[in-house]
Amino acid sequence: MRRQPALILRGLAAALSLLLLACHVALAQNDPLPSWNDGAVKTAVTAFVERVTADGSSDFVPAPERIAVFDNDGTLWCEQPVYFQVAFAFDRVSALAPQHPEWKTEEPFRSLLAKDMKTFTANGEKSVLAVIAATHAGMTTDDFRQAVLDWIATAKHPRFNRLYTDLVYQPMLELLGYLRANGFKTFIVSGGGIEFMRPWTEKIYGIPPEQVVGSSAVTQFDMGADGKPVLMKLAKTEFVDDGSGKPVGINRFIGRRPIFAFGNSDGDLQMLQWTAAGAGARFMGLVHHTDAEREYAYDRQSSVGRLDKALDEAAARGWTIVDIKRDWGRVFAWE
Amino acid sequence: MRRQPALILRGLAAALSLLLLACHVALAQNDPLPSWNDGAVKTAVTAFVERVTADGSSDFVPAPERIAVFDNDGTLWCEQPVYFQVAFAFDRVSALAPQHPEWKTEEPFRSLLAKDMKTFTANGEKSVLAVIAATHAGMTTDDFRQAVLDWIATAKHPRFNRLYTDLVYQPMLELLGYLRANGFKTFIVSGGGIEFMRPWTEKIYGIPPEQVVGSSAVTQFDMGADGKPVLMKLAKTEFVDDGSGKPVGINRFIGRRPIFAFGNSDGDLQMLQWTAAGAGARFMGLVHHTDAEREYAYDRQSSVGRLDKALDEAAARGWTIVDIKRDWGRVFAWE
Repeated sequence: MRRQPALILRGLAAALSLLLLACHVALAQNDPLPSWNDGAVKTAVTAFVERVTADGSSDFVPAPERIAVFDNDGTLWCEQPVYFQVAFAFDRVSALAPQHPEWKTEEPFRSLLAKDMKTFTANGEKSVLAVIAATHAGMTTDDFRQAVLDWIATAKHPRFNRLYTDLVYQPMLELLGYLRANGFKTFIVSGGGIEFMRPWTEKIYGIPPEQVVGSSAVTQFDMGADGKPVLMKLAKTEFVDDGSGKPVGINRFIGRRPIFAFGNSDGDLQMLQWTAAGAGARFMGLVHHTDAEREYAYDRQSSVGRLDKALDEAAARGWTIVDIKRDWGRVFAWE
Repeated sequence: MRRQPALILRGLAAALSLLLLACHVALAQNDPLPSWNDGAVKTAVTAFVERVTADGSSDFVPAPERIAVFDNDGTLWCEQPVYFQVAFAFDRVSALAPQHPEWKTEEPFRSLLAKDMKTFTANGEKSVLAVIAATHAGMTTDDFRQAVLDWIATAKHPRFNRLYTDLVYQPMLELLGYLRANGFKTFIVSGGGIEFMRPWTEKIYGIPPEQVVGSSAVTQFDMGADGKPVLMKLAKTEFVDDGSGKPVGINRFIGRRPIFAFGNSDGDLQMLQWTAAGAGARFMGLVHHTDAEREYAYDRQSSVGRLDKALDEAAARGWTIVDIKRDWGRVFAWE
């Protein structure tokens, strides 16, 4: 069958017009943030994204500079009753106990294994640091990665009896996708361990390892006896990506100032200040945990994820504060 | 005008077929690596890329895992007669001298300003480190960035009398573009300063700041008197991204093992070993500087970019060695 080029082109143009119309209608009908209740917070998010992405907008930001940073614990997933990485470390002690008979008498391992939490917590942070050192060091990065993957695929949250990865916030997943669909590059900037997050963030959040910034221990390059090099994790802190460490981590790993930042605790304050201090339009957001029924309610007095100074500064400077009870129609995907 | 949907679809299909055919012809005619001479090296590069990208290939690698890392000095741009960052530091001493009257008598600044290189070099590395500290610290990251941008826009190379950014290797620019067109994510992993490279790598190499790994000094978050936070660069080394530091830097910043790595000196050996030790198809390449006429010729005896052990290991393990004289039809774009 032979056809005139002009006819082909007209057919093509007509087909493309129909396609564009269909896309337009579909977009108008599909709310990209369905788990966010309508209101000032949702509008603040979408209005900001429209301002920085609309051609000809005075606040337009070129796509490569659309850097968005998110804290992880308490911002993208739950952090109660303890940071999930602490739960991982405790479970690792049980898993490793057969190889460490001395732990039967050695503190803090004895009390942890005996579930004698009174003795364990009596030594406070020292106990937790000893557990972190014993469970996060003295192995290769590859072996640690596998330990994280094994744990995250099976361990359950004590209250919800679900995988920890089921406890990511559905509204934040939607927000990450919405930002990426609008040309943003999304990063995690967390006080949590970088090697603890990277094995699963791509699958769960769509955030690849190279866009995860976190705390780290020193690693050492060793040439194995078989001629295969390994990286050994040492029991020595390299970088704490929390508080004023967050802008330092952003500068070191990303090398650009974000225009969009979301946190939930005082550990995120400097990241929000650093984001706010750039030129042009910026968005600073805080998740305020206000829903004890669907999740947890805590702020100024909490030992995990304390939100006190940052809450005051957010109010004073007009940053966006998400009230989970009011602003999120759904907290978890499985509700 | 009303038209049958079936006709529109047939017209669309015919137009797409024509388009695909045109693309195919255009690709076959357009060599993506025109500055590379035909031969074993060029074939090794293209054969590798085809192996890991062809659907159904037993060596297929999904796009997110196509991580390619490149050393910078001597691999992507020239590094003779001194690392360009050293030239920057020396020029900064002249620029800053009016603010430092004490440098008229204080070594190593006195001898450097007087162009008394005999005295300057008599103190060896100590002199260079003092200059780096004086020119790379005690200022904000924003101010340092501006100093780099000012210098790179104007400073000229002593032999070629051209901007330093004119001394990037045209074949490597083509290789970066070719890899990206095939779904690779390209990173710099350099012993050079991360804050020295990031201001210009996106424009020159198409590599954004967040894909640049390098050596760094400690930065400190300070709240300015005006309530605007700054990051101050301190005269304290944080990380040396050279030698066995390169796999450490790759693990810390990228969090995935590369499948493609290119270097040019012994400082790249561990990066190449680390890349080689992964499972599946890998490409390890070395640039061997063999062309004194068009660029420079140096290897085992050079104090800048020494290539000795890595040259032996590359030969023993069958890594790809680029002989500039033989393999590059053009070294610089302006030739």
